[in-house]
Amino acid sequence: MFSPLIKELIESLRCLPGVGPKSAQKMALYLLERDSQGADRLAASLRSALDKVGRCQQCRTLTEDNLCPICADDQRNQQRLCIVETPADVIAIESTKQFDGLYFVLLGHLSPIDGIGPEELGLDRLEMLCKEQGVEEVIIATNSTVEGEATCHYIAQLLKPNGIDVSRIAQGVPMGGELEYVDGNTLALALEGRKKL
Amino acid sequence: MFSPLIKELIESLRCLPGVGPKSAQKMALYLLERDSQGADRLAASLRSALDKVGRCQQCRTLTEDNLCPICADDQRNQQRLCIVETPADVIAIESTKQFDGLYFVLLGHLSPIDGIGPEELGLDRLEMLCKEQGVEEVIIATNSTVEGEATCHYIAQLLKPNGIDVSRIAQGVPMGGELEYVDGNTLALALEGRKKL
Repeated sequence: MFSPLIKELIESLRCLPGVGPKSAQKMALYLLERDSQGADRLAASLRSALDKVGRCQQCRTLTEDNLCPICADDQRNQQRLCIVETPADVIAIESTKQFDGLYFVLLGHLSPIDGIGPEELGLDRLEMLCKEQGVEEVIIATNSTVEGEATCHYIAQLLKPNGIDVSRIAQGVPMGGELEYVDGNTLALALEGRKKL
Repeated sequence: MFSPLIKELIESLRCLPGVGPKSAQKMALYLLERDSQGADRLAASLRSALDKVGRCQQCRTLTEDNLCPICADDQRNQQRLCIVETPADVIAIESTKQFDGLYFVLLGHLSPIDGIGPEELGLDRLEMLCKEQGVEEVIIATNSTVEGEATCHYIAQLLKPNGIDVSRIAQGVPMGGELEYVDGNTLALALEGRKKL
């Protein structure tokens, strides 16, 4: 019922996360019927982001410059480093305003089955960076998943011999979490990691 | 925290219906991190749809050809016409497989406040089309809203003097609708439009 170009637009909108066939159709018709200006802007910004955005040379996050805005900010504590899996994790931690150091973005986690080893995560560069900048403290904030834990463990073993203070973000009951509804694994972690009052 | 090009991409993704700041950020990072191929395809298909998609010369729906696939299909009944507000409504009616005629897409409804009158809806062309093609039956399927009803009424007055059989799609209780949960206005319409058994 749609002409080929519109069908193709609907199909290609489905590459967006969380967009199924119905929403893709709605988006395509909306853009063509009512917001061709917005669509034009979207096409242009997609094109230029695709052409120009690469990796920060220092922390590997996404940026079109050599250094991302955080690495380029000399007000930040160069001796503290927070290691995360993705650029979105950087945003999440930045939004707490509790961390004033730099980041290192793994862009994934160790996963030998998918051929992702220490090199793919840039761990050689991480080690070099720690030495060059004289990093004193490393906080590992990989996800609380099996892969995230394994990656954390590997990095800790790699950096500790260099005399760096390596820590892991706390795991336990989330704020506002009622014990009744917290899953067993989280509760077990919370018990194990109890703090003396 | 994001570099300018990424910020711009996030902002421009927000023109999509139903996409807020959080989803836009998720989409942008997903496209750049994990699906640059999909993003490339999206940018290209948006660009070519924007450049080439226009209106069907006969029914005014969206298409890149002179005639949309439905108007170009000579197997369809040329003497029946269904009038709808948007291209998405065409899809909705086609999916019922109950209509074998042609469509006329208003691309809106009468709304004098917004400067949308009979000309903007192409009603002059509709009248001409009915005469040229010898249309015998017109089914008005505008939305069941105040504006849709007003538009329906206007079109009926316009076409009836030409000896065309004009009807309105039925309004009443939807399939599977339990009376208890159907709103009062719909129930009033259902009562008024009762059918003899």
